[in-house]
Amino acid sequence: MTTSDKAPVFHSLGLPLQLTKRPIDLTLIQLGQTSTDKQSNLDHARQTVRRAVSKSGSSGSNTRLVVLPECWNSPYGVHFFDTYAEDFGGLYERVKSPLAERKPIANAAHVAAKGDLDEVQAATAQQEALVERWTVDGLNGRSVSVGESKSETLRMMSDLSKELGIVLVGGSIPERDAKTGKLYNTASVFNEHGDLISLHRKLHLFDIDIPGKMTFQESKTLTAGDRITVFECSLGRFGLAICYDLRFPECATVAARLGAGAMIYPGAFNTTTGPRSWELLQRGRAADNQIYIVTCSPARPTQEQIEGPDKAYPTYGFSMVVDPWGKVIHSLDEKENVLHAQLARDDVEEVRKFVPTSRQRRFDVYPDVSSAY
Amino acid sequence: MTTSDKAPVFHSLGLPLQLTKRPIDLTLIQLGQTSTDKQSNLDHARQTVRRAVSKSGSSGSNTRLVVLPECWNSPYGVHFFDTYAEDFGGLYERVKSPLAERKPIANAAHVAAKGDLDEVQAATAQQEALVERWTVDGLNGRSVSVGESKSETLRMMSDLSKELGIVLVGGSIPERDAKTGKLYNTASVFNEHGDLISLHRKLHLFDIDIPGKMTFQESKTLTAGDRITVFECSLGRFGLAICYDLRFPECATVAARLGAGAMIYPGAFNTTTGPRSWELLQRGRAADNQIYIVTCSPARPTQEQIEGPDKAYPTYGFSMVVDPWGKVIHSLDEKENVLHAQLARDDVEEVRKFVPTSRQRRFDVYPDVSSAY
Repeated sequence: MTTSDKAPVFHSLGLPLQLTKRPIDLTLIQLGQTSTDKQSNLDHARQTVRRAVSKSGSSGSNTRLVVLPECWNSPYGVHFFDTYAEDFGGLYERVKSPLAERKPIANAAHVAAKGDLDEVQAATAQQEALVERWTVDGLNGRSVSVGESKSETLRMMSDLSKELGIVLVGGSIPERDAKTGKLYNTASVFNEHGDLISLHRKLHLFDIDIPGKMTFQESKTLTAGDRITVFECSLGRFGLAICYDLRFPECATVAARLGAGAMIYPGAFNTTTGPRSWELLQRGRAADNQIYIVTCSPARPTQEQIEGPDKAYPTYGFSMVVDPWGKVIHSLDEKENVLHAQLARDDVEEVRKFVPTSRQRRFDVYPDVSSAY
Repeated sequence: MTTSDKAPVFHSLGLPLQLTKRPIDLTLIQLGQTSTDKQSNLDHARQTVRRAVSKSGSSGSNTRLVVLPECWNSPYGVHFFDTYAEDFGGLYERVKSPLAERKPIANAAHVAAKGDLDEVQAATAQQEALVERWTVDGLNGRSVSVGESKSETLRMMSDLSKELGIVLVGGSIPERDAKTGKLYNTASVFNEHGDLISLHRKLHLFDIDIPGKMTFQESKTLTAGDRITVFECSLGRFGLAICYDLRFPECATVAARLGAGAMIYPGAFNTTTGPRSWELLQRGRAADNQIYIVTCSPARPTQEQIEGPDKAYPTYGFSMVVDPWGKVIHSLDEKENVLHAQLARDDVEEVRKFVPTSRQRRFDVYPDVSSAY
């Protein structure tokens, strides 16, 4: 006897994929030469971005999204953050919607099964609740001018994104909240008009201790952020997180369920953690969520700089793009360089059609991390 | 000005790692020669396990844990399951604790911060609630005799585990629930005395459609299971799931938070999905949860069998063991073979000490999938 009875499957409807139909030309800037001279770091970044974007134009591509690495206007080290931190003057509160009270979000399939709402109404209610809970920066074109900001690095990135007509994910830089005195490792996103649409304060601070190889305690000087970051721009919806955040699957999972087609991580793994985990973590996030993963690292300092009296942080490098199957499709090595790639909506849709995990989850058995309490 | 204020971090205390101190000698049996003759499949499995365990003894190791592959007493195909399914006669209900009502489990750090309980009391309450919610098979030595079972395959595995004094994860076989007529793809675990301690009914059915390459619809004949499976035996605590379940991170995450030191997946990926995803998914689960991942596949049929009139399922093979860093430490190829490996508690503890993600999660920002509602 064969039965066709099936267990109930309360999959999340989440939000539909939000990426422009036209493939997105992307340029990663794996900056090197970061020194203690901030002005020189800013000049070098500006020139490198200008050159990379103009080159990509002449070679037939047309860069619309540029990503800078983690901590590129300052050397990376806990004793530098205080000196290099810039006051964003309340921009974080202006870019972010207030966080809603945390409560369970009803699963649309469950609601529809009970018959209170039809499937479309239930899905709409779930989707609205998801956006309200997690907040989406840049929603409906929301943006903030940084014209008067005290932060020279934000002003520079604003000018650059406007000048080149690009969406610029400005890596991360040390931020000081003047009101509280707290320091953050903060990523920023500008639209093609030079307006700020998103900020992400690193949510998981890098505190590890591998004796004799790598010890780092960001929490000695930094404060962690208060939320997972998803932003919307003219190219679609993206998740944004920084470096060590990559180790925590929830950032990418929540972003994907909010419709993001890619996660972008400015990040500086090192020569101990990089070979063990950098590529694997990206490929895992991509495959589990069927989205692109984009990482942008600083270039590696010279061996002399790493072993010398200043003990430069031994950045791993290897900025890369991973496709929604979990395959590395582009990667740099450890040297300063730029990387051009395309993010194609069709490729995301293909993998989701072939292996439809997003419709097969068993949220009747375990919670949906995006809607559970 | 530097500040040492930190954001509150409500990490999950979960349950402590439960693996014996002495490294566990493990043998994976990548069975081949599976035919339409069930008796021959049973004889071949028995002989192969006996030989592998006795060989491992003479070479200085001492196998205590043996794993068989997915669907080894029957050809793998939706039209075979009904014919080969065996009646387990109510064993599932006898092995499983009843599922508790699903409600949020209070985070111990949160409770302790409010001052209602001290840290130890709060952690104990959280841990007890986790075990009650998810259920743990074999808890406190709980086991069930299969002596009178109608299932000849369960009886054979029971005899074998007792004869060899091993914990036997008996891969999976098609199960029929005589009361409901439903069919399941079910994994079983026997202790050294031949008693049944755990059953797992495949939770995510394998329904995919990659045109021209791989189309399979398990849900045409099978019913999905009702829970994530964690079992306890003399060697410690383990998570158990089957094949396509590997694509869904929650099984491994919940098991790890219940103290499991390894996830065991009997599984039969194929020559389309295997190269793309089999190793990556295992490595991702290992790294994200800092546990061992163990998979056991059937061997690949010959090209003639795959392309011939019977169109044998093109199993990928490549049974492997991944360490808690996410590194493949042992792997077979596609041919019939056995694999000996060790699971070392010290290695799990080392990675968790060096990269302490389990204590750095931000469950104040996103839910803990093991305790959320």
